[in-house]
Amino acid sequence: MNSTILNELRRIVGDRYVMSEKEDRIIYASDSTMFDYCPDVVVQPATREEVVAIVKLAARNNIPVTGRGAGTCLSGGAIALKGGIIVDMVRMNRIRSIDAANKVAVVEPGVITFELASQAAKQGLLYPPDPSSWKESTLGGNVAECAGGPKGVKYGITRNFVLSLEVVLPNGQVVETGNAVDGDMCGPDWTMLLTGSEGTLGLITAITLRLVSAPITKKTMLAIYERLEDAAKTVSVTMASGIIPTTLELMDNMAIVATEKALKIGLPVHAGGLLLIEVDGVPSTVEENAKRISEICQECGVMEFKIAQTAAEAEKLWAARRGIAKAFGQIAPCKYAEDATVPRSLVPVLVEKSMEIAKKHNIPILICGHAGDGNMHPTILFDKRDKAAFERAEKALADVHIVTLELGGTLSGEHGIGFAKAPYLRAEVGPVGYKLGKDVKAVIDPENFMNPGKMFNYEGELH
Amino acid sequence: MNSTILNELRRIVGDRYVMSEKEDRIIYASDSTMFDYCPDVVVQPATREEVVAIVKLAARNNIPVTGRGAGTCLSGGAIALKGGIIVDMVRMNRIRSIDAANKVAVVEPGVITFELASQAAKQGLLYPPDPSSWKESTLGGNVAECAGGPKGVKYGITRNFVLSLEVVLPNGQVVETGNAVDGDMCGPDWTMLLTGSEGTLGLITAITLRLVSAPITKKTMLAIYERLEDAAKTVSVTMASGIIPTTLELMDNMAIVATEKALKIGLPVHAGGLLLIEVDGVPSTVEENAKRISEICQECGVMEFKIAQTAAEAEKLWAARRGIAKAFGQIAPCKYAEDATVPRSLVPVLVEKSMEIAKKHNIPILICGHAGDGNMHPTILFDKRDKAAFERAEKALADVHIVTLELGGTLSGEHGIGFAKAPYLRAEVGPVGYKLGKDVKAVIDPENFMNPGKMFNYEGELH
Repeated sequence: MNSTILNELRRIVGDRYVMSEKEDRIIYASDSTMFDYCPDVVVQPATREEVVAIVKLAARNNIPVTGRGAGTCLSGGAIALKGGIIVDMVRMNRIRSIDAANKVAVVEPGVITFELASQAAKQGLLYPPDPSSWKESTLGGNVAECAGGPKGVKYGITRNFVLSLEVVLPNGQVVETGNAVDGDMCGPDWTMLLTGSEGTLGLITAITLRLVSAPITKKTMLAIYERLEDAAKTVSVTMASGIIPTTLELMDNMAIVATEKALKIGLPVHAGGLLLIEVDGVPSTVEENAKRISEICQECGVMEFKIAQTAAEAEKLWAARRGIAKAFGQIAPCKYAEDATVPRSLVPVLVEKSMEIAKKHNIPILICGHAGDGNMHPTILFDKRDKAAFERAEKALADVHIVTLELGGTLSGEHGIGFAKAPYLRAEVGPVGYKLGKDVKAVIDPENFMNPGKMFNYEGELH
Repeated sequence: MNSTILNELRRIVGDRYVMSEKEDRIIYASDSTMFDYCPDVVVQPATREEVVAIVKLAARNNIPVTGRGAGTCLSGGAIALKGGIIVDMVRMNRIRSIDAANKVAVVEPGVITFELASQAAKQGLLYPPDPSSWKESTLGGNVAECAGGPKGVKYGITRNFVLSLEVVLPNGQVVETGNAVDGDMCGPDWTMLLTGSEGTLGLITAITLRLVSAPITKKTMLAIYERLEDAAKTVSVTMASGIIPTTLELMDNMAIVATEKALKIGLPVHAGGLLLIEVDGVPSTVEENAKRISEICQECGVMEFKIAQTAAEAEKLWAARRGIAKAFGQIAPCKYAEDATVPRSLVPVLVEKSMEIAKKHNIPILICGHAGDGNMHPTILFDKRDKAAFERAEKALADVHIVTLELGGTLSGEHGIGFAKAPYLRAEVGPVGYKLGKDVKAVIDPENFMNPGKMFNYEGELH
């Protein structure tokens, strides 16, 4: 990157917040996918005004700009595919306000998800979206990628909590979309156009989020099955019963074994599958629902069923679920961590089809996910240095995408499209939808310098 | 309208579904506002293909196209401001499917809201959005205007239930946005861009809606207050208590008197205000919440508190609330039925300010609304033949808008922007947001023939 630009950036954010040395930049070359593209420079702005100045500078010089939170993205959204400037939001990390009376929080994009959840909890409030990476991921990244999490089944995903966004548009203007008013507003929903737009339409500089009252109590249950099918069946029966559990997480044997190997917390390594179930609310309802769920598990042939007796015990169960992503490495160095989401009654079919695909391509596919809302994680494991295995993984990936769409599902329930799933985006949205996406992108970012090459501006071959 | 066009329209939908006589067209000249603009022709297509053919014909000849459901719109969205073609969706009224396992319904735009709610109820499911006009309004209109209703406080408004839309774009292409998968999907949310776009970006031809499990039981309560302020205070205290009522409706004395005059159901005409409160869910929770709400009402100085003992009694209470709109006519022939929505803790302030505005401009303002989520209906009543009163009403309206925005609220919680609130849209979204709206409209409808003159394409003076 030429020194004039670097000097301008230093003038905007201060010397120490511009990183252009190779060893600094390399840290920002990847996110939680296996892609690897080095940016030319990393800048860390502290204010909206600095973001505006960076965007205007980039626009004038036609330099790609990619926003970034903690880099926990699973679809390549936070990598600088075309080089240029990474705008790291780490310094914009203030929780500006938590308004308990109106259950609304205003945060900067660099706030860690768990930090907001913790601060809200101190006021008796809950911020439900809880991606597995929530102790590292930022709210800006969560909004840009529309992250989900186990609690999605009861509470919804990030988009259901975004009330208003302050966004620096590619032309350097600042727009404030939506309204802090909880629940209601009419008109085309710009907030929702920008939520999940993965930094391709602008950079988020402030977020107004809806909070809910914290549930009075909760119960965490573990159901262990000999056969994965019975666990999947429990999901369908529970969801059809009218109970809305807070979470309904499924893990197959491979996920259990990998997690146990990594964490050593006494998971049942011979089980075909397990469910991690939580219910929350007022005590009487929680009691009733837990009882009914226990009965459903028995009806579906559960091998072992336990209810966490203490918060610490519940936390230990959750550690298992949250540890899966890191446990993948126990099986293979590379993964395609998919988030195929299908109508919830078809979860057993998706599970079965994924196992067939694994067999067909002779490649391990681990299955876990938020089964309650049909948001599953068939995860293809391989070593990309093994060329043949890499090819088989790619074929398996295509098959997972095809099966998901055939079942009326969506490619992405929570990880975003980014670069990883961009080749398949047209297959999901259709040619007219794809053109609509390109047209709207072109009118907001005519020079295509905001996170180029992603989503509707992917330049490779389309499926 | 020239006969070539009329003949082409007849060829598309059949002779009997093209109405071009003055006496037919005049019926379609207004909606539930007081505007009056006669279309040149009204057509009633039966299929998506017919809608496509109509849109293509209109595009070729640059004829304005305005979609229309039941015409219950309160912001002028369904009137043909520039004449041209009204596309009446009355014949596209099939409920295509209700999938109980996945809690998803697919409907055509002309389905009456109440009809879907009734059919869903037969399968133990609830479609919550319940605008007062739900026995007449259509789902297409509800989606286009992003309608709300009393149940919004617990369940959310129409937008929270739209999963996917099939839309005929201005270029005649058909796009299917979103996905029938309940809850989850990433990417810029085209479904939400089109929901609430009031027919300015395309015509909706199919809607996939999320349903929820019907609550096992509910309780309807009526709380009568000497002073309106105490009713408003009850709202704040209830919402802060952590209880989420299904509905929390407020009526002031003027609303009570007008409704009683129209319906004669024994409402307390001397009361300063009343609340209509409902809670639903599992029996134990409903019991607990009703008890706690009764205590809160007592703490806030309620004069009389009763719980409906039978479904018929509850229905009678609801008849009062739903009858308000029709009762307005008892006071004055014209109204500005606003849907100012403010942070819920500020409902008492909005009520107070509205009373001040009424006094200042010497014009009656009736107050009712969905107080639980801050979505209030300050309704300005007048006779537009009385020029001086009309002018005072306009001034009062401007003041209501200004106060709402000053309180951090939104102009529209559920009625839409349309033509009525279009002059104030820029004040709400700001100059950058307004330009974004115009830009997106221009890229999707470059010839501006879809519902012209509304929302971002309003041509009058802007505030």
